[in-house]
Amino acid sequence: MQGQLRVYIDNVYPEIDGGKYPIRRVPGEIVEVEADVFADGHDLVCARLLYRHFSEKKFSIAPMESTGGERWKGSFEITKQGTYIYTIEAWLDHALSWQHTLKSRLAGKEKLDVELLHGVKFFQKIKTKAAAKEKKSIEDIIELFKDKKRYDEAVKMALSTEAEQWIKKYPDTGIFTRYKELSVWVDRKKAAFSTWYELFPRAASNVAHRHGTFKDVERLLPRLRDMGMDVLYLPPIHPIGKTHRKGKNNSLKARPDEPGVPWAIGDESGGHKAIHPELGTLEDFQSLVKKAAEHGMEIALDYALQCSPDHPYVKEHPEWFMWRPDGTAQYAENPPKKYQDVIPFNFETKEWETLWEELKSIVEFWMEQGVKIFRVDNPHTKSVYFWEWLISEIKKKDPDVLFLAEAFTAPKMMYHLAKIGFTQSYTYFTWRNSKAEMTEYMEELTKTELKEYFRPNFWPNTPDILPYHLQTGKESAYIARVFMGATLSSNYGFYGPVYELLVSDALPGREEYLNSEKYEIRNWDWDRDTRLKMAITSINKARMENEALQETNNVEFLNTQNDNLLAYYKQSRDGSNKFICIVNLDPNNKQWAFLQTPLEKIGKPEGQPFMVHDLMNDARYQWNKRWNYIELDPGILPCHLFRIEEL
Amino acid sequence: MQGQLRVYIDNVYPEIDGGKYPIRRVPGEIVEVEADVFADGHDLVCARLLYRHFSEKKFSIAPMESTGGERWKGSFEITKQGTYIYTIEAWLDHALSWQHTLKSRLAGKEKLDVELLHGVKFFQKIKTKAAAKEKKSIEDIIELFKDKKRYDEAVKMALSTEAEQWIKKYPDTGIFTRYKELSVWVDRKKAAFSTWYELFPRAASNVAHRHGTFKDVERLLPRLRDMGMDVLYLPPIHPIGKTHRKGKNNSLKARPDEPGVPWAIGDESGGHKAIHPELGTLEDFQSLVKKAAEHGMEIALDYALQCSPDHPYVKEHPEWFMWRPDGTAQYAENPPKKYQDVIPFNFETKEWETLWEELKSIVEFWMEQGVKIFRVDNPHTKSVYFWEWLISEIKKKDPDVLFLAEAFTAPKMMYHLAKIGFTQSYTYFTWRNSKAEMTEYMEELTKTELKEYFRPNFWPNTPDILPYHLQTGKESAYIARVFMGATLSSNYGFYGPVYELLVSDALPGREEYLNSEKYEIRNWDWDRDTRLKMAITSINKARMENEALQETNNVEFLNTQNDNLLAYYKQSRDGSNKFICIVNLDPNNKQWAFLQTPLEKIGKPEGQPFMVHDLMNDARYQWNKRWNYIELDPGILPCHLFRIEEL
Repeated sequence: MQGQLRVYIDNVYPEIDGGKYPIRRVPGEIVEVEADVFADGHDLVCARLLYRHFSEKKFSIAPMESTGGERWKGSFEITKQGTYIYTIEAWLDHALSWQHTLKSRLAGKEKLDVELLHGVKFFQKIKTKAAAKEKKSIEDIIELFKDKKRYDEAVKMALSTEAEQWIKKYPDTGIFTRYKELSVWVDRKKAAFSTWYELFPRAASNVAHRHGTFKDVERLLPRLRDMGMDVLYLPPIHPIGKTHRKGKNNSLKARPDEPGVPWAIGDESGGHKAIHPELGTLEDFQSLVKKAAEHGMEIALDYALQCSPDHPYVKEHPEWFMWRPDGTAQYAENPPKKYQDVIPFNFETKEWETLWEELKSIVEFWMEQGVKIFRVDNPHTKSVYFWEWLISEIKKKDPDVLFLAEAFTAPKMMYHLAKIGFTQSYTYFTWRNSKAEMTEYMEELTKTELKEYFRPNFWPNTPDILPYHLQTGKESAYIARVFMGATLSSNYGFYGPVYELLVSDALPGREEYLNSEKYEIRNWDWDRDTRLKMAITSINKARMENEALQETNNVEFLNTQNDNLLAYYKQSRDGSNKFICIVNLDPNNKQWAFLQTPLEKIGKPEGQPFMVHDLMNDARYQWNKRWNYIELDPGILPCHLFRIEEL
Repeated sequence: MQGQLRVYIDNVYPEIDGGKYPIRRVPGEIVEVEADVFADGHDLVCARLLYRHFSEKKFSIAPMESTGGERWKGSFEITKQGTYIYTIEAWLDHALSWQHTLKSRLAGKEKLDVELLHGVKFFQKIKTKAAAKEKKSIEDIIELFKDKKRYDEAVKMALSTEAEQWIKKYPDTGIFTRYKELSVWVDRKKAAFSTWYELFPRAASNVAHRHGTFKDVERLLPRLRDMGMDVLYLPPIHPIGKTHRKGKNNSLKARPDEPGVPWAIGDESGGHKAIHPELGTLEDFQSLVKKAAEHGMEIALDYALQCSPDHPYVKEHPEWFMWRPDGTAQYAENPPKKYQDVIPFNFETKEWETLWEELKSIVEFWMEQGVKIFRVDNPHTKSVYFWEWLISEIKKKDPDVLFLAEAFTAPKMMYHLAKIGFTQSYTYFTWRNSKAEMTEYMEELTKTELKEYFRPNFWPNTPDILPYHLQTGKESAYIARVFMGATLSSNYGFYGPVYELLVSDALPGREEYLNSEKYEIRNWDWDRDTRLKMAITSINKARMENEALQETNNVEFLNTQNDNLLAYYKQSRDGSNKFICIVNLDPNNKQWAFLQTPLEKIGKPEGQPFMVHDLMNDARYQWNKRWNYIELDPGILPCHLFRIEEL
């Protein structure tokens, strides 16, 4: 058949790097597929979308429509986790072409006898494919086409919508071109909608100067769940090395009583599979995972592939590290940062196979303890080939496991890590401040090919980053940043207690926390309430209850004619849930403007009233115009979270 | 080694459809390659270009340079016909990284003893790779690095350009990532630079009412060569069918004495491998090919895959055609055109293999007669899969064979035909009139990926198209169109006698010639000279003598601040040959303007004089400013062909 083909399929979207990498979805999401479909000559081209879950043998079919010219579009819905395959099939439909030609011949006043006989052939084929109860109607058409006495009636039937419907229902697909198979990786819902909270378990104690424990963390769970968090991410929970241990504020020498940096993993008692004795036991950890689940939360662990010089790996597997001529190991760097207490793995080692296997076994060990989410430390300083292999191996064992890439690096690498398998990624959101910056960045993430495989996770701060715009400590700025993180992106998180408590002291001239928890044990007033905490609670409640806020790619920016007021529209896929979000980017001054309201999307003609219901403070306003006055006072609340409701 | 890799290569340009199709070049042209090259971590990345002619076993190496960030660029020159392979190799250069790190450690006032010992290892490796006479110098460096007494001197050497040069000369390429292999199809020079003339041989007689012959065409050869033409393209030279033969001006019934349309190929005496008896014999044709070669010209034949109902194929191979229920064959159409005298092949036939073989044998038959260029009639109405196969088979037999696609169709198909193998293509030039249209079209052809595989051939007219803007018969318009075709594109042609002789009578309201040669035998005054013919002769002479005019992609548009004056700059690859072309698009009025002269490209600072030498009329002007007055009077000549010359 190959040589009989005439249709060509090209320029298919989405197709990541020629189909090398899958696109990503979660159940309930749609895959919209486009392609150029064309053929020689002037016969009518048809195309359809084929798709199947990996577990199914047969393809399902979805229609494709020409959008004018050679571009065709179709879509299908994802319903199950795992891999989907999709492709396109196209053919020249001779029966449709026949009907089309009939019209022009009729216009040219040609006699159509022979064409009607041609039609008989097409309808005989349709008859063989049709259902039993349909055969009679089709037989009638065939008889009509054959009956020279009923010529006019036959021509009318040949040109009718009825004939067209039969032709389309049983298409003439003798010879078809099929495109190569492309794939979708389908994660569980959490991959696309998650609310992260980071805390150092050693700071979880409510007794001053006491090292926190997993039991202390358990105590905090109801509080976090009440705030609406559903992922609790813990920095490394392993023994901390003593060699070159760092002291307060990253000083190169620790005093004997200083606890060291959790990322300097391993001492003689154990490494990545061990637990820091002061946090508790493995049983305590298992209990925490279980209790968290009871509160609807998951524990995410830090997967940080590096060792303290005291880590057992260093002695047992010197071949996994890079040694200097003087017999010392080179410490890790992520310029300008230097990690003198940490040595990296050498991914160029000839013993890469044993290294890879051991690193995989770490993930597997924690999976056995019930962990299904890993936040990966600096993935861009380890081999991308390793990540591709690791993530694919782990997903084969358990497709529920998710990986968040801490890929604060150049865009190319950040996006590549997503391509090869990371579920979510840290982003530049942390440094996007102005309306123009934020709009441009969101357009990049949600209106380009990135939307098919890169899932942003928006963090206003991390233990490594206290951005300049939060160093003023202004509560309105903190509310605005968390509001944007939570409503622009369906995945967001923040580094907890310091954020809620408006901790804003930085090292001079740097985006680093002063007296950072990385180097010492801090105690926080876990019971203190702030306006910020209330705001976070309201936002997270709204996220949980409203589908429109559980997607990232549905953002559409709105015109406010005020550079300090950022406004955007979001609606759920079925159109039933609609939001207008507005945020004042100026933490100091009240800002007002007229908002251009997307009445068409809301489905209200100008003049017809509807309600905007602010889920931040339960206020309700009635609007009926295209341009509506808005005003945000940072002294009160810097944001509106308007749900569109009927009056 | 796979698992030790850390560098990733991505987003390579040029790479047509993931490497499925080759890019195109001719000897002497350059291939510029770009790629994103990146790795985990902070070691220095290096990349180089590998390339080889298919006949060579070993890759040659060309350097690549980072253009900032992750984008790398390199290039190589094509010297031979046939297929080239190219790819990219990238690695982390530990020696370069070592030197780079030294600098920052020195800035940090660290002691470099251990680093110097590290350097010893790198230079020991370099020594093993170095040439015999180089070993001493490298050994000196090693000794210096080891000598603790000469620490300062050693550090200076380690950081020196000398050390860097050794490192770069013998790169540390233990573990490298290699990209997939991509290919270049290299045609002979004619593929990129050709000057076409089309004539109907039956009109070549200089005796009124006598059917022209190949001998008559031989008589015209010196005239055509004097005009500067190097490809003489003949519409089909085969017997013409009688059934449904068309008469004057496409009338559906021919009078008995009418000759029919040359594209209605075949009668009982023969088909695509036969010669119309009135044109001469096969020996006459062979003689014409030979004589043309003696004048530096090649004969291009028309490869028109269709048959008159009288063609022997129709009787011998009914399975190759589509039959209607009444036993007649459906005639060919290319809407809105109808070809009632022609029936198309059915490329969906189950007997496609015998059909393809037979069609290939037609090309082979004419290759045996010395023909190496085929102008393909309506390729977009035949299977693209067939073309891909045919062209590749033919090129295997003789890489000198070239195919020009008469692809007047939608852009997608037009460009696809180029991708799958056509050497050159007809274009939309014929209908691009305004300055904006022409500029935009040239940018599309020469500044996008198209430039890598699509070679435009610009025709101001064809036997099928007398565009509206030529129907006025204004000589200045004819000169302007041929000037643009010949200087914007290195491949151009025109449908001869009617063009030179300013024949401009059209069918009312249509872009069709009145009394077209397609349907009747015309006689032309082959001896008449026109201003237009003189202009064509000057332009073609300039093309032959100046490399800058033998390329298409080197066009750069210039600012004239007058929408009627189109100006562009062209220079040869080595920069020695430079042109400014200016054309007045208004056939009626004198137009003037100041031209913004590209002094930087010309290499003259403002104030330094140089000559612009108009090769149209041998006029010379001295310029020394950026803005120069230009004026073009269509009553004299509508164009300047300025060669930049020294005073």
